Amino acid sequence: MTLPAPQLWPDGASVDARGRLTIGGCDTVELARVYGTPLYVLDAATFRAGCRAYRAALERHYPGASSAHYASKALLNSAVVRLVAEERLGLDVVSGGELYVALRAGFPADRIHLHGNAKPRAELEQALAASIGKIVVDTLDELDLLARLTDGRPQPQAIMLRLSPDIVADTHAHIQTGSAASKFGLPLDALDAAAVRIARAPGLRLAGLHSHLGSQILDYTPIAQAVGILLDCAARLRDEHGLVVAEISPGGGLGIPYTADQSTPDIDAYVATVAQAMQAGCAARSFPPLRLVVEPGRSIVARAGVALYEIVATKPLPGVGGWDLGIEEQIQLPTPNSQLPTRYLHVDGGMADNIRPALYGARYSALLANRAAEPAAEHVHIAGRYCESG
Amino acid sequence: MTLPAPQLWPDGASVDARGRLTIGGCDTVELARVYGTPLYVLDAATFRAGCRAYRAALERHYPGASSAHYASKALLNSAVVRLVAEERLGLDVVSGGELYVALRAGFPADRIHLHGNAKPRAELEQALAASIGKIVVDTLDELDLLARLTDGRPQPQAIMLRLSPDIVADTHAHIQTGSAASKFGLPLDALDAAAVRIARAPGLRLAGLHSHLGSQILDYTPIAQAVGILLDCAARLRDEHGLVVAEISPGGGLGIPYTADQSTPDIDAYVATVAQAMQAGCAARSFPPLRLVVEPGRSIVARAGVALYEIVATKPLPGVGGWDLGIEEQIQLPTPNSQLPTRYLHVDGGMADNIRPALYGARYSALLANRAAEPAAEHVHIAGRYCESG
Repeated sequence: MTLPAPQLWPDGASVDARGRLTIGGCDTVELARVYGTPLYVLDAATFRAGCRAYRAALERHYPGASSAHYASKALLNSAVVRLVAEERLGLDVVSGGELYVALRAGFPADRIHLHGNAKPRAELEQALAASIGKIVVDTLDELDLLARLTDGRPQPQAIMLRLSPDIVADTHAHIQTGSAASKFGLPLDALDAAAVRIARAPGLRLAGLHSHLGSQILDYTPIAQAVGILLDCAARLRDEHGLVVAEISPGGGLGIPYTADQSTPDIDAYVATVAQAMQAGCAARSFPPLRLVVEPGRSIVARAGVALYEIVATKPLPGVGGWDLGIEEQIQLPTPNSQLPTRYLHVDGGMADNIRPALYGARYSALLANRAAEPAAEHVHIAGRYCESG
Repeated sequence: MTLPAPQLWPDGASVDARGRLTIGGCDTVELARVYGTPLYVLDAATFRAGCRAYRAALERHYPGASSAHYASKALLNSAVVRLVAEERLGLDVVSGGELYVALRAGFPADRIHLHGNAKPRAELEQALAASIGKIVVDTLDELDLLARLTDGRPQPQAIMLRLSPDIVADTHAHIQTGSAASKFGLPLDALDAAAVRIARAPGLRLAGLHSHLGSQILDYTPIAQAVGILLDCAARLRDEHGLVVAEISPGGGLGIPYTADQSTPDIDAYVATVAQAMQAGCAARSFPPLRLVVEPGRSIVARAGVALYEIVATKPLPGVGGWDLGIEEQIQLPTPNSQLPTRYLHVDGGMADNIRPALYGARYSALLANRAAEPAAEHVHIAGRYCESG
């Protein structure tokens, strides 16, 4: 038996002889029984395959001078940290909590980048104490604070500058992060002010430039465009401030499908586009090939994960079936394949474990774990348990 | 010195001689320093005053046969549980976690109501084991399960039925919960099916009927209308099924102001409206005055609470001020009282501690805790630290 829309499910997902969804050989109905629901299940094989797809594509299109950093905001826990380390990717964190988890799980500090538009002083101190690879600076205020905190350090701390390239990616407004008016990154006209600060901060060393246009991006053109803008800035820093930029990161944001009608991301094509922009852009500005960093998150982890819920109650929608009066089985089955939702399925989770439908109107694909290969028989609303109508 | 828009702040909020916001005599700047930020501060006096306002209004308008239950989904922790207990309100919970907190903090089980559209079996068992006051049943599936779980109990478990009165309150779609197509409550045409089940379940005792139209409701008319519908249902249960309904709860949902241009809720007027609907409605249907329960949450706790953040960085918006080149103080102050936002203030919290702006576009009032009485000098964006543009 096969899964409907297998491209949405983990590589290790299958349907067993009893019709149950299995992931990596584990019966999901049994997982739900043993561990309770809601339960997040992660297929390590799919996660590893995503990491390897990025590494292979980088090696193919930009050999010898590239790395991929897993963006841990997509999902982080100790097991994920160990997978990332074993697959030899770097790790992006955006909070002291994530940094703590990464270090506790034994991730090499020199392969960690700390991002964030509003890093509290305590988190910067935590990052400096751990000697992490790079701190990605978002504001002049942060740069000033870091200059003070690193004054007198024997080894300067490597930093990147996050720039706001003034490009609007085609995605949900909540996850667009590259416009000039965004809260993220230094506007391009602040580059000189940043350069002046870096030049006179002995505890800081400029390593690279970074931008990130947003999440769930399906058209790569703006990302290639951002590479060009970052290289323009690198040239300006070289020509006007004598600063050497060795590394360029156009962030991450490659989108993924959530429903059968959406297309699957092409990691190789995405990396090829970015690599080509780097190669052409470096040559045009008389740079050697600068180091390229990409920072995928969702496109590595999303398909690896499946959330299990239990249906704890159902409720017919008005005007659909009749009501079981309890005397005999009078419940009227909904018309098969009707396009209208017939009832609510109340599950034992909701906004607290998945805020995306309420926040973005995000849509997902669902199936019954104990009847995984059966064709859909009716349209239903899946309702969470929280006091919201989502 | 006085606070701007004092009606938005706790009763115990003030400004001290240094211009700092104090709450209940505590310097908020010092609280932030000692406990760190983000920090929720709750003024117990305001919370108690809200509880007392409900009790006094009920005693005035519906004497002798009423109670108020604090809706703990608005905010629950052990300290809040103790305040509710001391103020002699009942307590509504909507999860096993909240029930656990309430019982651990010593709240009397017989004054707890368990709500929820999708209660897992384990939570119903937890509630039955604790012999809580009432379980508010949301679906026929839940009723069937409860009938099985309570079969053979020496004392029947009191339940209420949550009905969906098919009234749409004037509030945000996410927090409208009273329409017939809502995930919440039994549609009115399922009442007979429920009655049949209750009549043959020896372990269950029908105590009352409940509805809840939604949150942040500023016009009480639909709530009074819901009382009439619940009383219609009580009459139908009496006349056609011989079931005695002793208690009517039209839920909660009284709205509160978040900004200076919004009006303050009138708890007395709200209770008067509901009480009048009960008195007239009971008389019209030949009922004695049935017991009235109201379930306020936000209107008790919201104004009592203040969230403290630290501004960790700022960022001018494009086209506004110049950039400090760091050579001398070239930063250009924004034009005072401009109506356009001049910059971002990045704070050390965001969606994780307050999802409402991103989820509903909710607006709040803010002030600088260390310059609390100063008039506003510029318009700014307050930006959280999470990887979202909100």
